[in-house]
Amino acid sequence: MARRTKVYEGKAKVLYEGPEPGTLVQYFKDDATAFNAEKRAVIDGKGVLNNRLSEFFMSGLNAIGVPTHFIRRINMREQLIRAVEIIPLEVVVRNVAAGSLSKRLGIEEGTALPRPIVEFYYKDDALGDPLVSEEHVIAFGWASQQDLDDMVQLALRVNDFLSGVMLGVGIKLVDFKIEIGRIWENDFQRLIIADEISPDSCRLWDMRTGEKLDKDVFRRDLGNLADAYTEVAKRLGVLPSNGKVMTRPTLIN
Amino acid sequence: MARRTKVYEGKAKVLYEGPEPGTLVQYFKDDATAFNAEKRAVIDGKGVLNNRLSEFFMSGLNAIGVPTHFIRRINMREQLIRAVEIIPLEVVVRNVAAGSLSKRLGIEEGTALPRPIVEFYYKDDALGDPLVSEEHVIAFGWASQQDLDDMVQLALRVNDFLSGVMLGVGIKLVDFKIEIGRIWENDFQRLIIADEISPDSCRLWDMRTGEKLDKDVFRRDLGNLADAYTEVAKRLGVLPSNGKVMTRPTLIN
Repeated sequence: MARRTKVYEGKAKVLYEGPEPGTLVQYFKDDATAFNAEKRAVIDGKGVLNNRLSEFFMSGLNAIGVPTHFIRRINMREQLIRAVEIIPLEVVVRNVAAGSLSKRLGIEEGTALPRPIVEFYYKDDALGDPLVSEEHVIAFGWASQQDLDDMVQLALRVNDFLSGVMLGVGIKLVDFKIEIGRIWENDFQRLIIADEISPDSCRLWDMRTGEKLDKDVFRRDLGNLADAYTEVAKRLGVLPSNGKVMTRPTLIN
Repeated sequence: MARRTKVYEGKAKVLYEGPEPGTLVQYFKDDATAFNAEKRAVIDGKGVLNNRLSEFFMSGLNAIGVPTHFIRRINMREQLIRAVEIIPLEVVVRNVAAGSLSKRLGIEEGTALPRPIVEFYYKDDALGDPLVSEEHVIAFGWASQQDLDDMVQLALRVNDFLSGVMLGVGIKLVDFKIEIGRIWENDFQRLIIADEISPDSCRLWDMRTGEKLDKDVFRRDLGNLADAYTEVAKRLGVLPSNGKVMTRPTLIN
């Protein structure tokens, strides 16, 4: 009894055909994966939290004129988004050294970076999403120089906005990953933020205690991941109205 | 009976104080190392060959207006060079996929690249010389944006020249690594090519047979390294006048 067509299934989300051309329905699963899916778990309620949090961040970005794929939330686990052609790069912005940057360049975790650093990783699970430079991106045609310049500008605007949002609730935005897609409007290409923005794709440290409130809780076995995400959602005031994380999706009709 | 002061000793070369301020003597050892010095050997005659070959390439570059540190060859194993402040980056130019590029990005060795790709690696043995992007270089102050632009231009000119030299003797220039240093002239900084250019720092494939004529012979146990380098030197007409590779150094006096 398939009620709609699945377009794509990833590690944490499913995309279905949307109600109108150029739209998709993005469904948030409870699956958590790390280390290129070598570590896996189902975290009850994670999908509901990320659906809400991504809605919160993306609609905030839309409101300040940073274009995103987000149209509206449909239900607990689903949101309506614009269909885009995803550029095959993970765009990472770092404010503080952590994770792979610390490891690769020998910089202690927690060291403030001299300025935000924008990195590109080639989206390819089989290769472990390798770091690439602008030279690789352009030579292999994954994006043009103009695209890259636009992507850096978008990424830095997202960093300004998200850093501010987090600062307001006592959380340090250490780094985050976004994906960017192309849409066409009157034959002109435009780049917009796609995928999701959630504690799955950010590093968030409590400013007072240093406590991690992001997927590192799962990666490094630091506690209950849903509790950490719930803490972020609570501080931002974006928990479901009844204050309870529901785990049964209400399907779109 | 130290006749001069050692300034620096690396894996394949030693630097001594030079006869005048701003100069150094660069001594080429026979030591070969690979995989971050995990694999080591002494290759009889390699230092003599590389001293000659680096002289050949560097003086050729000087002649076409690409500035290098090379002043003159002193003897079989030594050359007089300008002292520079080395920028801590290995600058790699690739024309054909091979080595780490093939491995990291899943591109079969031997695939022609859509255009030459310039890469930067942070010189740090303990970290395994990690790939970095321009963002890292600038954020950590290893070089400025202007330096990077100049380095890319220098690297591409070296690529044009070396590709031509090799084409002339039936060898494909697959990729190469250079180092670049700063000198000051009337308070103005200038960037010049430093270190060495030799089969230790290039990938060279015979155009007809595909035979490797570079350090991969050592890395991958493909035969006698000195024979491969001698073949390159012979084709370029830069073997010592007696046609024989002497292995005993004549020290500078």
